[in-house]
Amino acid sequence: MSTTRAPVSSLIAFASAAFAKTGVPQADADNAARLLIESDLAGSDGHGIFRLAQYANGLKAGRISPKAEIRVLNDSPSTAHLDGGNALGHLVMARATEIAIAKAKTQGAAWVGVRGSNHAGAASIWASQMLPHDMIGIYLAVGSNCFMAPWGGFERLLGTNPIAFAVPALEEPPIVLDMATSIAANGKVQMAQQRGEQMPEGWVIDRNGKPITDPNKAGEGVLLPIGDYKGYGLSLMIGLIGATLNGGQFGRDVADQSLPSNTGQAVLALSISRFGDPTEFKRRVDQVVRDIRGSGRLPGVEEIRLPGERSHAVRTERLAQGVPIPPGLRTALDKLADGLGIGRLS
Amino acid sequence: MSTTRAPVSSLIAFASAAFAKTGVPQADADNAARLLIESDLAGSDGHGIFRLAQYANGLKAGRISPKAEIRVLNDSPSTAHLDGGNALGHLVMARATEIAIAKAKTQGAAWVGVRGSNHAGAASIWASQMLPHDMIGIYLAVGSNCFMAPWGGFERLLGTNPIAFAVPALEEPPIVLDMATSIAANGKVQMAQQRGEQMPEGWVIDRNGKPITDPNKAGEGVLLPIGDYKGYGLSLMIGLIGATLNGGQFGRDVADQSLPSNTGQAVLALSISRFGDPTEFKRRVDQVVRDIRGSGRLPGVEEIRLPGERSHAVRTERLAQGVPIPPGLRTALDKLADGLGIGRLS
Repeated sequence: MSTTRAPVSSLIAFASAAFAKTGVPQADADNAARLLIESDLAGSDGHGIFRLAQYANGLKAGRISPKAEIRVLNDSPSTAHLDGGNALGHLVMARATEIAIAKAKTQGAAWVGVRGSNHAGAASIWASQMLPHDMIGIYLAVGSNCFMAPWGGFERLLGTNPIAFAVPALEEPPIVLDMATSIAANGKVQMAQQRGEQMPEGWVIDRNGKPITDPNKAGEGVLLPIGDYKGYGLSLMIGLIGATLNGGQFGRDVADQSLPSNTGQAVLALSISRFGDPTEFKRRVDQVVRDIRGSGRLPGVEEIRLPGERSHAVRTERLAQGVPIPPGLRTALDKLADGLGIGRLS
Repeated sequence: MSTTRAPVSSLIAFASAAFAKTGVPQADADNAARLLIESDLAGSDGHGIFRLAQYANGLKAGRISPKAEIRVLNDSPSTAHLDGGNALGHLVMARATEIAIAKAKTQGAAWVGVRGSNHAGAASIWASQMLPHDMIGIYLAVGSNCFMAPWGGFERLLGTNPIAFAVPALEEPPIVLDMATSIAANGKVQMAQQRGEQMPEGWVIDRNGKPITDPNKAGEGVLLPIGDYKGYGLSLMIGLIGATLNGGQFGRDVADQSLPSNTGQAVLALSISRFGDPTEFKRRVDQVVRDIRGSGRLPGVEEIRLPGERSHAVRTERLAQGVPIPPGLRTALDKLADGLGIGRLS
């Protein structure tokens, strides 16, 4: 078996059928499926259709609620605090970004924080929701697994808590940064494991501070943060602002994986028009992009890329050619389909 | 000569006299002096009284305007866009944070962006302005010098653009993260130079990508970002949101050091009460602090610190004992006093 391509429409139909079969109302199932595939379109292969079985299992086991009963706990002119009711993270964040955008339209800026949410795919997706509205988006999420320790420590108290920023350009692709606060995201470790490759030194250390390079032994160690204490500090701040503030789980109280994750997330929408003409701004962004792309390079470097540039190219290509489905994923999706009694991915 | 201590009141009086003598109205001079010394109190020695001569020279040469003619270019319910009129950065940021706090009180969240500003001391100072108001603060600033290159590049197009976050606790010190997006801030390079020490590998590379460890040759290289492309991405995003959005200088258009810097900065204030009871939140923050402080350590690590913990202790100590003034700084301040015709620092 080799890697094949699945059209985006087939992936959405398949994911929607899986959600509907596990109790998600049809309209929500369609919406969640569409948002799920956005991660595949962004090239974040570990955050899209790859996760469908995990979500379906969570729905079947009751760890994720099929009904999107999202409550507004507090609503002020430029903030909202939501309880996601343990629904699919994509549905919770869709609601959160919708509210943030509506508020930023009238107020200029808006911040929405959520608790009781779940994994919502690639961080870039949510910061990017602001782009069509001539807004800058910032998104932060608190991992429901802890793989990092405080700087100098060995106890797993911190997630690789990602942060994403999205800034629109005029003729150039938008600039979208999506980064975990660890040097290597946990997905990269899993990928090295699947491929039977060694990890470079600097990703994971053991309890003596020595590097672990065998990905099968990564579970005995902790992921290292970017910039030593800086990445630790960033992860901590994202945890406090994305989870502790919202009443989500963080640190020592991160749940047993058999319980609802009570994931915390937050999003900021900032309206560009409050700082000048959006077209003028986007033209200046184009100039920055071109200055960087055309700047002097180190020996052996073929091109200088902007954050989000590769994702943008992948999106265009995958919309046209479909999303690559490696054999292992195909097998897992077939197994999921057969288990649920829905048609296999075509 | 050895390091002596100067009381905070003497430092403020001295800085105020220097500002007043270079044309800053007395009330503004007092205010700027007080805010300048906040960086010394935070233990950010490279950002406080150390910079006074640089500011005074800028004022004398006309690169910094003595009059704080700050204009509100755009005012919306939860944003403001300011032109600092090239005043002292401390006065511009004092105004910006005041507006952000007032707006966040009624709106829940507020974002204020400025252009035409100047260096405003340690980033932590501005994020921390929110703390007494039961707010979370975020601040970002765009350096008026470029010491970093895009990832893979060698051209100095990026500042070490810092970002700061401040979150209040109840009984514990507030958690305050203040980080440059480079592995080593430029001030650390200057300090190594002053002390005649070598820099570790990983701070600066030359145009062949090889490490530079002699700080006297740092000018031939570029500072490396934290987390490789991640720090590059963060610096770029801070530049776009802190400068490009506000009409400040960034990238290739960063000014000749003989011209006004047109520094861009931005600040966010987020009211904790919109997400639950502030005391309850601060109690949860205390718990996170204690969990981290008491967590398992790597061999040889004596304590695990929280961001801002050292600064908090330094502040308490310096308020009581005064700020250490090393001989070199004393000489520079005496020279400044004599040149301006004001009394020397007592």
